[in-house]
Amino acid sequence: MTESAQTFDKVVAFIIELERLKQVNRMIKVKDTSRYENSAEHSWQVALLAISMLPYADKPIDGFKVVKMLLVHDIVEIDTGDKFAYDASHDDFDNEAKAAERIFALLPEETGSELKALWYEYEAKSTPEAEFAYGTDRLMPVFINLANNGQSWQEHGITKAQIIAKNSPAAKGCKQLWQYVLERLDKAQAEGWIA
Amino acid sequence: MTESAQTFDKVVAFIIELERLKQVNRMIKVKDTSRYENSAEHSWQVALLAISMLPYADKPIDGFKVVKMLLVHDIVEIDTGDKFAYDASHDDFDNEAKAAERIFALLPEETGSELKALWYEYEAKSTPEAEFAYGTDRLMPVFINLANNGQSWQEHGITKAQIIAKNSPAAKGCKQLWQYVLERLDKAQAEGWIA
Repeated sequence: MTESAQTFDKVVAFIIELERLKQVNRMIKVKDTSRYENSAEHSWQVALLAISMLPYADKPIDGFKVVKMLLVHDIVEIDTGDKFAYDASHDDFDNEAKAAERIFALLPEETGSELKALWYEYEAKSTPEAEFAYGTDRLMPVFINLANNGQSWQEHGITKAQIIAKNSPAAKGCKQLWQYVLERLDKAQAEGWIA
Repeated sequence: MTESAQTFDKVVAFIIELERLKQVNRMIKVKDTSRYENSAEHSWQVALLAISMLPYADKPIDGFKVVKMLLVHDIVEIDTGDKFAYDASHDDFDNEAKAAERIFALLPEETGSELKALWYEYEAKSTPEAEFAYGTDRLMPVFINLANNGQSWQEHGITKAQIIAKNSPAAKGCKQLWQYVLERLDKAQAEGWIA
């Protein structure tokens, strides 16, 4: 086999492995609540939320890095499954890191290393890009809940205080957006569908 | 309402409109063939295919531009639905452009204009980024078919000659990759599951 065929075999192996993220369901339903959202389509939507929010970031950030982080941030769920953000057992870093090592190693070395490093950076939330990406990931289900009368919050008995505590790290990426979210939550509470 | 609240209302309106792309089914099934793929998860996967292929592009290209194009390239299907690549009626540019005008106008002006321009550039295939993005979009279902014994090709009676004719524009972005695909198609034909 030629060197390039071996390289492309690796790219294809990675891309086909991604099929499995389409089968990982999250706790939130798509807006018409006909089915649960999966982590693949979520990753697409949150990448576009980040792109839409880039002009309002509080710090100068590398937008492409943010988007790449978000496109791969949930890939480990292929091995670990989705964890509900409000579960105490949400953090399972060791297993997720093991999954990241396995999955990114499918790729040719150069891209595999880059994406794996971005995955770790996202997890560490140690850079402005990771803070911003993490903030948009926190807010994506908040916006869907605000559009579907709090389906996943209601199913799991999540209160406004919990929503604020869990998602306030979003303020690190864009303070104004977090302020906006707080106002939307107040309004939802006034309308009576958030506990 | 403050100016920033109006801005964020627009971002959220766009992001929630994207929910509808999760309901647009394509002709191809996910790898375990339990259901059809939707255009939202496809957009995520093809963006990662592009990222994985960037080091092998024939021309110098702006990777972020490619990825943004791919994240929005199918958004118009919210209004028009998915068209099967091998259908004669595949091209429906006027309706798609009308959809693009409507959907990108939901966003604040700056980002809406940028993404709309990228959508038109992708459609025109007039730049190295658009050629590369279009090539990866052509190849994404080819790789899934090569991994699931040609499910959508078999369901629709698509021959190897049709596959090659339809997807050869991928060679404009990366000649080596197209050569690799031709070899994989030869192998599939030798194995007897491509007509």
